[in-house]
Amino acid sequence: MEPASAPLSLGRVLLTGAAGGLGRVLRPRLRPRCTLLRVSDIAALEPAAAGEEVIEAPLQDRAAVATLLQGMDAVVHLGGISTEQPFDAILQANIVGTYNVYEGARRHGVKRIVYASSNHVTGFYRQDEVIAATMPVRPDGHYGLSKAFGENLARFYFDRYGIETVSLRIGSSFPEPKDRRMLATWLSYDDLERLVVASLTAPVVGHTIVYGVSDNKAAWWDNTPARHLGFRPQDSSEPFRAAREAAQPAPDRTDPAVIFQGGAFVRMGPFE
Amino acid sequence: MEPASAPLSLGRVLLTGAAGGLGRVLRPRLRPRCTLLRVSDIAALEPAAAGEEVIEAPLQDRAAVATLLQGMDAVVHLGGISTEQPFDAILQANIVGTYNVYEGARRHGVKRIVYASSNHVTGFYRQDEVIAATMPVRPDGHYGLSKAFGENLARFYFDRYGIETVSLRIGSSFPEPKDRRMLATWLSYDDLERLVVASLTAPVVGHTIVYGVSDNKAAWWDNTPARHLGFRPQDSSEPFRAAREAAQPAPDRTDPAVIFQGGAFVRMGPFE
Amino acid sequence: MEPASAPLSLGRVLLTGAAGGLGRVLRPRLRPRCTLLRVSDIAALEPAAAGEEVIEAPLQDRAAVATLLQGMDAVVHLGGISTEQPFDAILQANIVGTYNVYEGARRHGVKRIVYASSNHVTGFYRQDEVIAATMPVRPDGHYGLSKAFGENLARFYFDRYGIETVSLRIGSSFPEPKDRRMLATWLSYDDLERLVVASLTAPVVGHTIVYGVSDNKAAWWDNTPARHLGFRPQDSSEPFRAAREAAQPAPDRTDPAVIFQGGAFVRMGPFE
Amino acid sequence: MEPASAPLSLGRVLLTGAAGGLGRVLRPRLRPRCTLLRVSDIAALEPAAAGEEVIEAPLQDRAAVATLLQGMDAVVHLGGISTEQPFDAILQANIVGTYNVYEGARRHGVKRIVYASSNHVTGFYRQDEVIAATMPVRPDGHYGLSKAFGENLARFYFDRYGIETVSLRIGSSFPEPKDRRMLATWLSYDDLERLVVASLTAPVVGHTIVYGVSDNKAAWWDNTPARHLGFRPQDSSEPFRAAREAAQPAPDRTDPAVIFQGGAFVRMGPFE
Amino acid sequence: MEPASAPLSLGRVLLTGAAGGLGRVLRPRLRPRCTLLRVSDIAALEPAAAGEEVIEAPLQDRAAVATLLQGMDAVVHLGGISTEQPFDAILQANIVGTYNVYEGARRHGVKRIVYASSNHVTGFYRQDEVIAATMPVRPDGHYGLSKAFGENLARFYFDRYGIETVSLRIGSSFPEPKDRRMLATWLSYDDLERLVVASLTAPVVGHTIVYGVSDNKAAWWDNTPARHLGFRPQDSSEPFRAAREAAQPAPDRTDPAVIFQGGAFVRMGPFE
Amino acid sequence: MEPASAPLSLGRVLLTGAAGGLGRVLRPRLRPRCTLLRVSDIAALEPAAAGEEVIEAPLQDRAAVATLLQGMDAVVHLGGISTEQPFDAILQANIVGTYNVYEGARRHGVKRIVYASSNHVTGFYRQDEVIAATMPVRPDGHYGLSKAFGENLARFYFDRYGIETVSLRIGSSFPEPKDRRMLATWLSYDDLERLVVASLTAPVVGHTIVYGVSDNKAAWWDNTPARHLGFRPQDSSEPFRAAREAAQPAPDRTDPAVIFQGGAFVRMGPFE
Repeated sequence: MEPASAPLSLGRVLLTGAAGGLGRVLRPRLRPRCTLLRVSDIAALEPAAAGEEVIEAPLQDRAAVATLLQGMDAVVHLGGISTEQPFDAILQANIVGTYNVYEGARRHGVKRIVYASSNHVTGFYRQDEVIAATMPVRPDGHYGLSKAFGENLARFYFDRYGIETVSLRIGSSFPEPKDRRMLATWLSYDDLERLVVASLTAPVVGHTIVYGVSDNKAAWWDNTPARHLGFRPQDSSEPFRAAREAAQPAPDRTDPAVIFQGGAFVRMGPFE
Repeated sequence: MEPASAPLSLGRVLLTGAAGGLGRVLRPRLRPRCTLLRVSDIAALEPAAAGEEVIEAPLQDRAAVATLLQGMDAVVHLGGISTEQPFDAILQANIVGTYNVYEGARRHGVKRIVYASSNHVTGFYRQDEVIAATMPVRPDGHYGLSKAFGENLARFYFDRYGIETVSLRIGSSFPEPKDRRMLATWLSYDDLERLVVASLTAPVVGHTIVYGVSDNKAAWWDNTPARHLGFRPQDSSEPFRAAREAAQPAPDRTDPAVIFQGGAFVRMGPFE
Repeated sequence: MEPASAPLSLGRVLLTGAAGGLGRVLRPRLRPRCTLLRVSDIAALEPAAAGEEVIEAPLQDRAAVATLLQGMDAVVHLGGISTEQPFDAILQANIVGTYNVYEGARRHGVKRIVYASSNHVTGFYRQDEVIAATMPVRPDGHYGLSKAFGENLARFYFDRYGIETVSLRIGSSFPEPKDRRMLATWLSYDDLERLVVASLTAPVVGHTIVYGVSDNKAAWWDNTPARHLGFRPQDSSEPFRAAREAAQPAPDRTDPAVIFQGGAFVRMGPFE
Repeated sequence: MEPASAPLSLGRVLLTGAAGGLGRVLRPRLRPRCTLLRVSDIAALEPAAAGEEVIEAPLQDRAAVATLLQGMDAVVHLGGISTEQPFDAILQANIVGTYNVYEGARRHGVKRIVYASSNHVTGFYRQDEVIAATMPVRPDGHYGLSKAFGENLARFYFDRYGIETVSLRIGSSFPEPKDRRMLATWLSYDDLERLVVASLTAPVVGHTIVYGVSDNKAAWWDNTPARHLGFRPQDSSEPFRAAREAAQPAPDRTDPAVIFQGGAFVRMGPFE
Repeated sequence: MEPASAPLSLGRVLLTGAAGGLGRVLRPRLRPRCTLLRVSDIAALEPAAAGEEVIEAPLQDRAAVATLLQGMDAVVHLGGISTEQPFDAILQANIVGTYNVYEGARRHGVKRIVYASSNHVTGFYRQDEVIAATMPVRPDGHYGLSKAFGENLARFYFDRYGIETVSLRIGSSFPEPKDRRMLATWLSYDDLERLVVASLTAPVVGHTIVYGVSDNKAAWWDNTPARHLGFRPQDSSEPFRAAREAAQPAPDRTDPAVIFQGGAFVRMGPFE
Repeated sequence: MEPASAPLSLGRVLLTGAAGGLGRVLRPRLRPRCTLLRVSDIAALEPAAAGEEVIEAPLQDRAAVATLLQGMDAVVHLGGISTEQPFDAILQANIVGTYNVYEGARRHGVKRIVYASSNHVTGFYRQDEVIAATMPVRPDGHYGLSKAFGENLARFYFDRYGIETVSLRIGSSFPEPKDRRMLATWLSYDDLERLVVASLTAPVVGHTIVYGVSDNKAAWWDNTPARHLGFRPQDSSEPFRAAREAAQPAPDRTDPAVIFQGGAFVRMGPFE
């Protein structure tokens, strides 16, 4: 066994969407590993702790976002809308917002972005299909469309400007799986942290797409093409299986929300 | 940790081939999880225990088989011949018999079938190939041909009538591996049970083909496309390796039974 | 340019199903290239011309079929049922019948079979998919199931006994395309003849599966894996397009017969 | 040979971007085959000919666009920006504009859209790679990103609402190839017309992506997966080869515009 | 139609192996298109015509070979042994010789090499397989091994030094097909010339592997991945079919030379 | 649990390169499992222990090498140069040397070879790619080229003479990972032993290529196609992560040695 060493510093990191569900989970977990953690959101944020900066900014404001990027080594971009909503809202928060983050990164020389994409980019695959990130996208709504846009933006900024991204197609990250579908899609908070840290510290990532999911027994996603990242989930939804199955013993197999990976997202809308 | 819940009931289940080797293994393991376990075979069966019905019926008898299906939620279809035999016997028991089971399921609205297929569907692949269920079949005899027919029937009944099947390409399910080949093909009884339960309880399966094999060190079959099922074998042939290797230290590498995955099946026949 | 040579003799060839639609087309086309053309059917046949033998025999009669194979160099096996029918009829004519042909070939040392399979082996793929013969089968009925069985039998007899087969997944072979679907599936009689001759004369075929289709503009099938056969269709459905489109200007895109490759076959049945 | 029939009517068709380069090419070619051709653009349009309606409307105006769709059987959506431009302009014209077209189609029951996508969706592949539309996108700029968005939108509207699209990844459609790159990417106007007509008349297309390119000798794109459309280009850039090679005898192989398929697009920007 | 232009000059080109079979074919065909054609061989060469230089040099002589490369724009490397021979001879002529050519190119800044590889790189595939250059190699002898080495060398010199190569896996280039196998493998001299010219003039090739074969009816090789080159063969072995089939009417299907693509090469050797 | 059995004897084994780094590791580990362990090298070797023979021989000496093979059941061929060196040295030691080993095996009827290939056969893939042994090679230098040659030789000797080989694309086998790159490439000595033993004892291997790497968190290589071997690494580089990251906190992402899998090998040379 090696003598102990301190874990690798993550450097100066911007965390967008820090007031959101996953933002609040990651903020205290990232802070101790960063030289500086700059947190941002459009919503109110907890005051800055030691080693933190707090800057409120709407993602649609290109200039404000550019300022956020100044002096950063990396970004964890969680900001934007993370539920299915009418198109115009998603357009501003997710499409324009993510564009602004990449433009800010380009201007200020930030070279690594961890981008919170979503399993809803491929939500119209069936639950009896096992897919890999190399397969064509099948978004299940405005939200999934915006995340597919963000992934393509990431690919472009790598091909054109050498800015690296890990796009995390996050399954369902909650304290525990909330329904039967999440037995397959659950990402524990500890595994989320492992994934974000691996994405920030891997020496070379280009544009890597990885599904963010724990080591659940049932799996819809094959992360083989992203094994270079070093992400190895250690949690599983299995301890929750009996309770979740008991609560939903007889899923309706004719319901698109049961058939497709995106769950209820696939039958939301139209909104107008 | 969640509070304990009872495992999901399997509902009303028909078990065919209940007097056969695997039927006798599964019968007592499935019974406690079923609302009703109806067991059937052409051979004599143990009397019905509590929660069981016993019905003897030959699979070739379409009307009798249809009656078996009445009122069932699901079928575990193990019935038929499971060794290499002359064609006419296999034709009746496996091809006609399985057709009768599917027709019975269609008539009586049974929507989930777990079908005991076999690794002999692909027995003419070499032992130094790792194959997946998406690759073309290469049956190694009448038995393998009949099982390939059954899988195609399952695909058709799903595409045409929405009846779901999990086709289990069972390796070698015995109390322990009996020879060197089974170090790769062994499926422990506990893993068999896990596989059947996963196949019955997964919310959506369409037509899924999965190899039924324990977590043996050497593997000829890549079950990645079926990981959505949630089958994770927990046993391994490794404890038996030294004994099996000692018993067969020098396999003849020019023997087709050593070269091909189907083992001795590949050189049985012709029968006439 | 080379000095002219006579085309390669096809040797002693058995043609089954010689009284059927394609049998009657091929009989006079093959005869002049054969040393002997033995024609057979269960139905009445035209009397033997010079260079022909005529033997009526039901395919279900194993002994009678074996006799047919005696002394042959090759078989063109068109016999059996070529429409969707109740299972028991298909079982006898196509499954038992084809088994009998292969057993006869094995016993009498016949080494090349051209087998009339069908596009209905993959009829449940969509019309907007382009598929290859290496993809999993999706039969669209009893007929398609029986043809998939025949292909697997062919694979087995090659792997086990070295008997070679070309399985022809024939599209729609008629004097002309009869409806809009056949603009994609049509196989002209001349192209059918080219395909059968190529299948009989290619030096090595193992078990080759090829779609039998003319060079139609719209194509559902990619024959790249079978280009070693040397089949190059020279006809096209295009001259018939305007008339067929005029007759069916507005196909109902919600009709499974319009959506799937198998056309009307996909919604035949159930028969009982 | 069949008796002559009139070609299939294209029905009531909306042509957006009718004042643009390809719009002006297609308008007179489509008109005679339509029951009604409604043409639209933000720019001034030629007055309506017989069988035409002319409606000026900006694509960003959701209500105006919805009105355009009313009563249509199909849309050929060429509208928007077709060069590399700053993001905000592309966002409005191409992303918002195309969303508006699809929403209009959904509201008014239009079931077939032919969408002018672009080869710039995959412009960051190398010129020595041959790619298919099933491979991951690699957009080469804002324009390519917007077209990738449109394709994903098309996929979503098919999966969710059953609206079919053919996405045309148009190469370079001009009267003749203008430089050496276009020897590979050129789409003649006649072939463009063939492609649009095939896309409108194929009975089933789901969401099909096809590269719009003539039968040039050098090809970067493999359209095998879209052969079901029935598009067979009949023109070639070959007659222009000598002149184009003479004009650019020594391309600089270190120039990204020479290396990548997107040509000069890959080194445009940044714009701010 | 364009006004006529002179075809693109090939610049200063080195032709090795100019005294060999294909060297003598290509020398007069390339000369008029080159600024300078430097021809070399170990064997005696025809005296220099106008626009030519003649230099005799053994490929094993690194310094002599380096001198050959001086001042060249491109190389057509046909030199070395092109039949199956004992290893030591092949080692010197083909492995050491080709290394010397690449080292010479690197030293003298030559940026494009057309390398005469061979179908014997994949000669142990069966004649009923259709393969692409992306599949693993299966050399059929010392000669095939040396050509696989040369292809790997080409890949390395591109990855490491940016020197581009087109590796031509030449089938059988003779005035006409000499036996039944060559009905599939024949490359006419005109098509050979087309292939070499396309390889020299394509703007970007990286390391491209292409099978050198005419448009024969039967094809073992799928050149789709190399279609970016612009090589379109225009000849066919078909006019020679009848004569070649008449001369070998009954190939022995148990002979490895009949079964495998490499023909007689697969059963040459051992030499010691 | 089975009664204990002795592990399978490896028989009479030749170990070449026994004086090298891995040779000294394997010699004492293999000896107790062999009937006879013959060790060889060009360098001085420890005297023979019980059950050993020691024979010094240069690999370039065909006759001497042939003698080494006499009477052996299997070979573990580690001999040759294992660093990047000028071509001529590599040519003799690795290309000629390995040819001599295979020729010796052929002459003396040795039927199984374990060949120390290297990850440098594919060193020009990027570190953010996960590759399998079925993908085209991309050697990163003379050493990688020589190992690719050896793998092709192995393929040929299996296809032609039935001699089986497992080619081990060894990552970095040292007592511990020495730098950040080795967190992905490390193969512990215990896992190396497991791999060699599995390669010697698997009943059927044909020509199998496997990456020799421990169960490290980050993985560039997907060994799925070789799972039939039964190699399951049990060690991991993870305990060394913190120290290695601390020592190289900020790898230069523009350095080819950081970008490509081959590490520093990719920028060695040219040597002349």
